[in-house]
Amino acid sequence: MTEGYEAPLFSKLAELGIQYQTARHEAVFTVDAQKEVVSSLSGGLTKNLFLKDKKKGFFLVTALHDSDTNMKALQQQLGAANLRFADAEVMTGILKVEKGAVSPVAIMNDAENQVTLALDAKMKSCDRVLIHPLHNQATISIAFGDLMKCLSAIGKEPVFLELGEAGAAPPAAAASAPKPAPKPKAKQGGQQKPEKKKADDASTVATDTSDLGITVKKHEDFSAWYQQVITKSGMISFYDVSGCYILWERAFFIWEQIQAFFDAEIKKLGVKNAYFPMFVKKARLEAEKDHVEGFSPEVAWVTKSGDSDLAEPIAIRPTSETIMYPAYADRIRSHRDLPVKLNQWTSVVRWEFKHPTPFIRTREFLWQEGHTAHATNEEAEEMMFQALDLYERVYREILSVPVEKGMKSEGEKFPGGKHTSTVEAFIPANGRGVQAATSHHLGQNFSKMFNIYYEDESKQKSLVHQTSWGITTRSIGVMVMTHSDDKGLVLPPKVAPEQVVFIPILYKDKDADKIIQNAEAIYKKAQGAGIRAELDARTNYNPGWKFNHWEVKGVPIRCEVGPRDVENGTCRLVRRDTGEKVDIQQENLVTELNALLEKIQQSLFDKAAQLRQEGIAKISTFAEVMPALNNRKCVLAPWCEEEATEDEIKKETQRLSEEMAQTQAEVEEEGAAPALTGAMKTLCIPLNQPEMPEGTKCFWTGKPAKSWTLWGRSY
Amino acid sequence: MTEGYEAPLFSKLAELGIQYQTARHEAVFTVDAQKEVVSSLSGGLTKNLFLKDKKKGFFLVTALHDSDTNMKALQQQLGAANLRFADAEVMTGILKVEKGAVSPVAIMNDAENQVTLALDAKMKSCDRVLIHPLHNQATISIAFGDLMKCLSAIGKEPVFLELGEAGAAPPAAAASAPKPAPKPKAKQGGQQKPEKKKADDASTVATDTSDLGITVKKHEDFSAWYQQVITKSGMISFYDVSGCYILWERAFFIWEQIQAFFDAEIKKLGVKNAYFPMFVKKARLEAEKDHVEGFSPEVAWVTKSGDSDLAEPIAIRPTSETIMYPAYADRIRSHRDLPVKLNQWTSVVRWEFKHPTPFIRTREFLWQEGHTAHATNEEAEEMMFQALDLYERVYREILSVPVEKGMKSEGEKFPGGKHTSTVEAFIPANGRGVQAATSHHLGQNFSKMFNIYYEDESKQKSLVHQTSWGITTRSIGVMVMTHSDDKGLVLPPKVAPEQVVFIPILYKDKDADKIIQNAEAIYKKAQGAGIRAELDARTNYNPGWKFNHWEVKGVPIRCEVGPRDVENGTCRLVRRDTGEKVDIQQENLVTELNALLEKIQQSLFDKAAQLRQEGIAKISTFAEVMPALNNRKCVLAPWCEEEATEDEIKKETQRLSEEMAQTQAEVEEEGAAPALTGAMKTLCIPLNQPEMPEGTKCFWTGKPAKSWTLWGRSY
Repeated sequence: MTEGYEAPLFSKLAELGIQYQTARHEAVFTVDAQKEVVSSLSGGLTKNLFLKDKKKGFFLVTALHDSDTNMKALQQQLGAANLRFADAEVMTGILKVEKGAVSPVAIMNDAENQVTLALDAKMKSCDRVLIHPLHNQATISIAFGDLMKCLSAIGKEPVFLELGEAGAAPPAAAASAPKPAPKPKAKQGGQQKPEKKKADDASTVATDTSDLGITVKKHEDFSAWYQQVITKSGMISFYDVSGCYILWERAFFIWEQIQAFFDAEIKKLGVKNAYFPMFVKKARLEAEKDHVEGFSPEVAWVTKSGDSDLAEPIAIRPTSETIMYPAYADRIRSHRDLPVKLNQWTSVVRWEFKHPTPFIRTREFLWQEGHTAHATNEEAEEMMFQALDLYERVYREILSVPVEKGMKSEGEKFPGGKHTSTVEAFIPANGRGVQAATSHHLGQNFSKMFNIYYEDESKQKSLVHQTSWGITTRSIGVMVMTHSDDKGLVLPPKVAPEQVVFIPILYKDKDADKIIQNAEAIYKKAQGAGIRAELDARTNYNPGWKFNHWEVKGVPIRCEVGPRDVENGTCRLVRRDTGEKVDIQQENLVTELNALLEKIQQSLFDKAAQLRQEGIAKISTFAEVMPALNNRKCVLAPWCEEEATEDEIKKETQRLSEEMAQTQAEVEEEGAAPALTGAMKTLCIPLNQPEMPEGTKCFWTGKPAKSWTLWGRSY
Repeated sequence: MTEGYEAPLFSKLAELGIQYQTARHEAVFTVDAQKEVVSSLSGGLTKNLFLKDKKKGFFLVTALHDSDTNMKALQQQLGAANLRFADAEVMTGILKVEKGAVSPVAIMNDAENQVTLALDAKMKSCDRVLIHPLHNQATISIAFGDLMKCLSAIGKEPVFLELGEAGAAPPAAAASAPKPAPKPKAKQGGQQKPEKKKADDASTVATDTSDLGITVKKHEDFSAWYQQVITKSGMISFYDVSGCYILWERAFFIWEQIQAFFDAEIKKLGVKNAYFPMFVKKARLEAEKDHVEGFSPEVAWVTKSGDSDLAEPIAIRPTSETIMYPAYADRIRSHRDLPVKLNQWTSVVRWEFKHPTPFIRTREFLWQEGHTAHATNEEAEEMMFQALDLYERVYREILSVPVEKGMKSEGEKFPGGKHTSTVEAFIPANGRGVQAATSHHLGQNFSKMFNIYYEDESKQKSLVHQTSWGITTRSIGVMVMTHSDDKGLVLPPKVAPEQVVFIPILYKDKDADKIIQNAEAIYKKAQGAGIRAELDARTNYNPGWKFNHWEVKGVPIRCEVGPRDVENGTCRLVRRDTGEKVDIQQENLVTELNALLEKIQQSLFDKAAQLRQEGIAKISTFAEVMPALNNRKCVLAPWCEEEATEDEIKKETQRLSEEMAQTQAEVEEEGAAPALTGAMKTLCIPLNQPEMPEGTKCFWTGKPAKSWTLWGRSY
């Protein structure tokens, strides 16, 4: 089927004597997906936008994947007015290619010369570029010169656009292969402020830009902002296996703080750490029917070792119930063997095809998974809530993030479990709920499948009652989304690798040594008192650059020491979260710092709790739902809890969202994240239930409501 | 080719109307290997021994995989004299099957009725059994009754043997599938001592036997002894993916102690923890030629997610150089970005086909891997040795195991690296060396492949110098092999989950409450002083049972409190390692315990160091090699260090070992570990070199020797 699409192009290229390489792959609809399947080809990845302006002129814009194609800049460069995405149907009508398959060569189908082809000028510096051959089940690598030759031959000369670099787009696929020579220094974006130019030399792990500062606003493009914050702060780098990310030490430090707290707390509950294999055979994985249905579409299978095929495929754990419980069956004989309370800190793999988001939705992620077995239902229930309480504390005490404790609906509970408790976070910036950690009561479903019996004192055999519970590195993403701002990361003091950075403020080398010495002295004082402190006494950067540098990294307090401070024995503390400044006596440094760190930890929580409260609309009718969702809110609604209704509500909110989107001329940018789903689903039935007056009706069915339930668009 | 072998059998079965299921697989030579490829079949796995006695009678013994087939018991049951393994060639002559393909049906080829067929009586209780159909590229599952029917039809009635249970053999493959009903209690072995029968009710995680005590002697069957020690102590359970094991909390606790020590020490050196993806694309993995050659035969490949094929196979990390270093190239720009010192605690996968041994050689194992980048060669060299020193300390200070620091030979160094330093341990019980941890100087090989350049102060670009270093859960196996004894595990106090167990000694309920209360009081005192203490006040077990129970688990000190102790304010401390007893005043309990724990930690090291010293023969000629090896020693020999000679020496020692084995009527037991290779290889060139008199010659070439080199058979 695809041959029909590509044939005219391939004929043309053959006619022109142009060589190209082809990679055939499954249909891909985003540049990210394409990147993953074309690693055998070299060349710059491209994104394609089909646009129109108010005079009904059409534009086909092809740019390198990591170029900044914001509409304003494009409009200016194209000299267009009211530039917007054109409808997919209109595009297919003109270019004869489907959504997802656009490339500059599609211009050959523009028989009526309706479309202006515009290429990113940066493509000129690519030896080769990667484009779809009029359909999206293949990609070709073609020399840029040959692409120009081809366009020329079909009579379509492009215009060129000068585009900036996108803030933090993933590196192109080709970058993963060994490079032929040392990379040139990262290019300097056109919009850089003069003082930032020094970033070029700075120690930064941002992968794709030397631009130190955050260039996107949280409330304008949340997704791009988030990517900039986590990459420019040195937490994350993108990786060439899609959905996997590098957690640098600045990110892992946060995970270590979560681990330290949680590990100590579960040990107080008698939980011990163990390690179970990451591999599981098919038959085991499939022992519990609901469970396997929940996980099997996302399971990664090992089928080969070296050049040999394995006798049977082996799964990488998506979760370890089916790995651990047969061993529990061997281990547990008597009531004296109970409870068994084990935990492990591992990574797990779920090969999801939803758009990946670092920390939030990744194909490999870090977590802990606790697995307990008990003699009674009550003990298991208690264990489930003990774990849940600890998750709430991790978020509140360590990450300063408020979460709602509740129960998952029947439709959202853990596959194969009895019921699932959850802590749910809320991201005010986009109004989405996010499942923050879950704790499951598994009942006797798994013990039945794996024959986990114990003998009680009267020699009676019974199935054990089980729980499992986990928190993942998603928690770090939730924390970043909650606190960070347009200047970059904002870290709660408890998880900040540096809690205070000391910066000497030098004026024209006046008293430079003295100031540096003083700054160093109080830095050491703080460090000696157990405060995680950093001294930035580099003389090749000015203070403004340094302020920016440490703000992007989220250091909670900056301590400035200037000439007058040295004279007066003072210093200035500046809060990262509020920008508030306070001058203090150096002799009170440690006390003041400790107090301020504690205050910041608490005030981040308070601010987030306030926003969370404002972001949840208590409603009583379905008519109130869409206005609330579109106002970036979740809703708390009285619900009858009938399982089928959840799906009805999802579908209806999806339909209404799409309807609205259509009237707003929906996005058609290749390579962008797929449009966020508009459906609303249940987040949880909060444990802390507001009063429900007698006769309260379900907001959907009108039947008597059973509980106040939290609903929202979610991650 | 295989059809020719199986055809006569399958004809016979068809003729008799016997149904069976067949699994076709690669040739397997051990029951472990077979187990892995037959999981689609149900039935008891069997092992087969072809034996002869001094009257030249032949016996074909088929037993369940986990039955004890020690020669003494077999001889007794068969009424044979001087029973031993028959030569493979003789067997093939009579039974017409190759080594590795024997099964009871092979008796059909015994045309001259030379062979007595003997079956394990336990097979009668198996519904089905798994046997090879006269070749080892297939396995059939046949009902036991049908097997008997077949044997009867070919006129070969078997005799039956009453065999005990092997100590700690892996559970049969079929055990992995969900079982139809609660398992019966584990059977009681025939040789159990009366007091051990109570083990039936005990809380033990041994997977396949209720027999609490160790039934094999360390110096009689080291491999079986090791399996019993690690399973009966509750550290390890076998798992149905071959080469993967379950690390229960008692094993993982030891790993946690190693982690705590090492993690704190590397942080002092400025190393920080991070996390890199477990997946790597083929092109990256293959970027460094020597490196990929070293690892690719063992790489596990993910090729599917859910039901879909991945566009290209993705490897699971066997080590992370190729995963991390492209990101290092992105991160490192300037000399100010150096050094980069990162570490991660993860599991890695190496799909080896050598015989797996828990902890020592496993397909998935836990480790830390440090990866550093430096501006100079000297800094990298220093880092390599800093890591090496810490490894030596882990073994000495934490695990009480002496190791030799040295350099690997060219032939044994890390694939792709410049040179490798190592700590080498020695197992006196079998005379084998074992690589205990390695630290590599990678030079600029990887930085060249991945373009990791930095700019120095004069803006000159240079490649960075790198190191990588790792220690694995193998260290736990080395520790077990070093200290443990015929009673079970012996743990150094620093890694013992319980350092002291308090046991009240009750006589006919006389003063029982008082004694228990006293034991509890001093237990709490010890616990309050930070000693990891356990109180075993269970009244349904007698003291002897409890002594055994905690001895198997390796608890360093037992503290007994009897009636007279309560009167006198005394208690008795018993050392696990030496059995030494000392009565102390309860008022000195904490001081005495702390002193004794320290003493045990040191004395375990001293004893091991002594045995190590005795186990290394300093030699000067090749003629001394084989006698030393066969006397369970390693050798320290002057060597010319020429790379080619190492292979020559390996081959010659292999040849000599085989020759000797043949004259001793080599083993032909199916299902046993493959015969240990007799080859000797270099372990290391010790850093601490004995004096080498001028004119010392290489023990192999006779050329001038360059260094004293440690050689041995090894894991």
